[in-house]
Amino acid sequence: MEPWRTTIARADATHLSIRGYDIAYLMRDTTFADLVFLLHRARLPTADERRLLDAILVAVADHGAGAPSCAAARLVASGNRESVSAAIAAGVLAIGNEHGGAGSACIEMIAAGVERARRQGLSIADAARQAVEAEAAAGRRVPGLGHRVHTEDPRVEVLFGMAQAAGLPGDGVAFVRGLQEGLRARGKALPINVDGALAAVLYELGFPPAAAKFVFIIGRVAGLTAEVAEEYERERPMRIRIPVEYDGVPPRRID
Amino acid sequence: MEPWRTTIARADATHLSIRGYDIAYLMRDTTFADLVFLLHRARLPTADERRLLDAILVAVADHGAGAPSCAAARLVASGNRESVSAAIAAGVLAIGNEHGGAGSACIEMIAAGVERARRQGLSIADAARQAVEAEAAAGRRVPGLGHRVHTEDPRVEVLFGMAQAAGLPGDGVAFVRGLQEGLRARGKALPINVDGALAAVLYELGFPPAAAKFVFIIGRVAGLTAEVAEEYERERPMRIRIPVEYDGVPPRRID
Amino acid sequence: MEPWRTTIARADATHLSIRGYDIAYLMRDTTFADLVFLLHRARLPTADERRLLDAILVAVADHGAGAPSCAAARLVASGNRESVSAAIAAGVLAIGNEHGGAGSACIEMIAAGVERARRQGLSIADAARQAVEAEAAAGRRVPGLGHRVHTEDPRVEVLFGMAQAAGLPGDGVAFVRGLQEGLRARGKALPINVDGALAAVLYELGFPPAAAKFVFIIGRVAGLTAEVAEEYERERPMRIRIPVEYDGVPPRRID
Amino acid sequence: MEPWRTTIARADATHLSIRGYDIAYLMRDTTFADLVFLLHRARLPTADERRLLDAILVAVADHGAGAPSCAAARLVASGNRESVSAAIAAGVLAIGNEHGGAGSACIEMIAAGVERARRQGLSIADAARQAVEAEAAAGRRVPGLGHRVHTEDPRVEVLFGMAQAAGLPGDGVAFVRGLQEGLRARGKALPINVDGALAAVLYELGFPPAAAKFVFIIGRVAGLTAEVAEEYERERPMRIRIPVEYDGVPPRRID
Repeated sequence: MEPWRTTIARADATHLSIRGYDIAYLMRDTTFADLVFLLHRARLPTADERRLLDAILVAVADHGAGAPSCAAARLVASGNRESVSAAIAAGVLAIGNEHGGAGSACIEMIAAGVERARRQGLSIADAARQAVEAEAAAGRRVPGLGHRVHTEDPRVEVLFGMAQAAGLPGDGVAFVRGLQEGLRARGKALPINVDGALAAVLYELGFPPAAAKFVFIIGRVAGLTAEVAEEYERERPMRIRIPVEYDGVPPRRID
Repeated sequence: MEPWRTTIARADATHLSIRGYDIAYLMRDTTFADLVFLLHRARLPTADERRLLDAILVAVADHGAGAPSCAAARLVASGNRESVSAAIAAGVLAIGNEHGGAGSACIEMIAAGVERARRQGLSIADAARQAVEAEAAAGRRVPGLGHRVHTEDPRVEVLFGMAQAAGLPGDGVAFVRGLQEGLRARGKALPINVDGALAAVLYELGFPPAAAKFVFIIGRVAGLTAEVAEEYERERPMRIRIPVEYDGVPPRRID
Repeated sequence: MEPWRTTIARADATHLSIRGYDIAYLMRDTTFADLVFLLHRARLPTADERRLLDAILVAVADHGAGAPSCAAARLVASGNRESVSAAIAAGVLAIGNEHGGAGSACIEMIAAGVERARRQGLSIADAARQAVEAEAAAGRRVPGLGHRVHTEDPRVEVLFGMAQAAGLPGDGVAFVRGLQEGLRARGKALPINVDGALAAVLYELGFPPAAAKFVFIIGRVAGLTAEVAEEYERERPMRIRIPVEYDGVPPRRID
Repeated sequence: MEPWRTTIARADATHLSIRGYDIAYLMRDTTFADLVFLLHRARLPTADERRLLDAILVAVADHGAGAPSCAAARLVASGNRESVSAAIAAGVLAIGNEHGGAGSACIEMIAAGVERARRQGLSIADAARQAVEAEAAAGRRVPGLGHRVHTEDPRVEVLFGMAQAAGLPGDGVAFVRGLQEGLRARGKALPINVDGALAAVLYELGFPPAAAKFVFIIGRVAGLTAEVAEEYERERPMRIRIPVEYDGVPPRRID
């Protein structure tokens, strides 16, 4: 088999380096958020970049035992006590376009919209409104808005405030606010959610769309480990009983 | 269904808190390592505690594309391009007692050994030697020692140095060094590996055994996201070909 | 890399064989239960063996949307609509010693008990009673008995009847009935469950302990695919809301 | 929480039924292939339908230890010996559009093509050729053709022959042959693969597109259990070493 090629990590008998930096220096002089940035951007972040990435990782780490990822991890922990990896992996699997993954589609929409605004001399707000119309015409939901629990997502303004304080350009945030405005103009008042907020900020930080899912997963896994730990410590196996109602065909016999 | 009880996160229409702290404060004033500590210890860490946890998370984040967790994530990314969650979950699943999980068994051994030393008035080194003898008698491998790639694991002394500089008591580190000494006395010269090192330090920081696996998984997931990103960007689907040699029964016919 | 060795499947440019049998013959002349038997026992089953294995696979395929494996698959399907593999994998992950996996421990107990009966000239029933006492003394639950839903598991007597009709020796079944009797003698009236029933029959068919989990997983995956299909067709994304009650520390501030 | 609704399984204290059939009857009088059909089509199959579904499940069960699904399961089994569920789930996760999942896209293409042929009075072969042109124009690969190992996939003609003998209409098979012909006309000689073959037959049996992935997964899980069993029995933990070559940035220092 040909060797697999990689630009990420290099290990030999006595050394390990990540993106060219010796692990000893990374351990001594950087934080985990620095390393996440380094892994995905191939350079270390500035202090502002690190602070924003930390805020995003903190923001998404947990949202209660009933979030689909947390609930899936707990259900698996309820039936399978021999592998914490199994429970955490199940939590990761629940993260998709509908849960935790909308940030990727949102960065794509921001990138396309900001580019269109520049090319066509539109305001960011107008480009966002056009994007809302296009999604509505295609029968798709606008990513980054709406929440099952929050009427106002408490993480959004905090993150936008930090981004502004850090001097980010603001076009990603403006675009997502424009999406919200565009929906409101169509009679739908929805809060910006954390997916929309992190998409705006990751876009302004120069991350590609895929990064939104990756960053969400990294942050959420921390919460999943705590949910699994609590399930193991506090609950007995098989304690979860989902009420089910059968409404299929009545009893029948094999002919 | 009865509500699930939790002490971790609380969410309502306009608020989210983790272990009692409002998410806004956490996002503004803490780092991701702080949050990991908070999730598992129900309090925020000191600066030294945070620094050591950051060093551990950085240490385990990646170890090259061929580590079982990274390779499993890449194999899944090779066949399944529609879900990054699937690839990352597969990487998490490869983490077990043999890979990334030895730290949990090692903390258990340290805790039992240090306790035995105290109770019986033994030195830590003697307690460790006894533990090595007990494992040998039971035909078990001593956790936290040996590595497939490293003759000397470059992460170990860095972490031990940082722990000492932070003023940790040192009994966990002494015990793991004692395990190495005990094996050497039996003719086996093995390096302390990162599982052994993080076990020693997490033990001294007051973490329970399960935390070693949790912390390893949190750190490694960061690396897994980068491995999957590189696989998607750089390689075509289904590029991985494992050479296989069949050595089973010869061709036969159904009677 | 050295080639991986295998005795299972062999593939070249124009052929594929499993355990030495050409796939064309297997497709034309055997059933899926035959193949499952062949994969795990390296020979094709007799008609009776096939019939019993079919009955077991059918027995475990589904047990309602609220079984932990089914519920985990649905939760993941609820958040992640882009990968059916992710949802089914989550369902598999919920299968462990507490759910679907007790059959493996039960075969081990049967094998040890029947062997002890032979060696010591005990009746199977007495050996089973001793096993119950030993588990009770060790504070462990006896595997293969008890059910969250069934006061009498409707699959058990059907399978035992089929095993008897097929002329199986009956010592596995006798041992599991002995476990039930032993528990009853201690004041615990529990039904034999499907794990206990399939353990008894797989033991008599000559399967090793691990096979109980494998067979359960193969059968249950069929049900998981149907649960996921129904979730996708009938429900909207993110429809599952688990009620959660926070009972942790009250609101506090970062010092 | 509102009860979850389901039409699949119903369980109470003493009964279990699937799609209205009592589990006792199903265990006694049906096979696993019958049950798979019942789960997905809500009725029991005819003898011919059962035989074809058995042939498909047998065809896809295993393709050697190096297939991505099998290799992923083995890699996870190599690092995680405490959970067979984890290894099998990893194998399932490797199944996606690129591996084992092309059948779903292929059924969609067949259904659309056969419908177009009817509506426009085209021959099936012409409709298939148009589909090939459309895929080529869109820069997409035609699903169901080509194989990494086989120059001729030995499962295809067996399945097509069985379908013809069973008196299936033949339009799905004709369409897939037309795809092959259309590619050949463009200078690409590719074998029909098992995904294309099972798509043709499942389409003619009336299954929806999603069924191709579900059926592949059910069949392959049988093979995965055998691969994991062999890995556990025959190999030591952590035996798999993937050769890796680092070609990233050279060593550098933190500024």
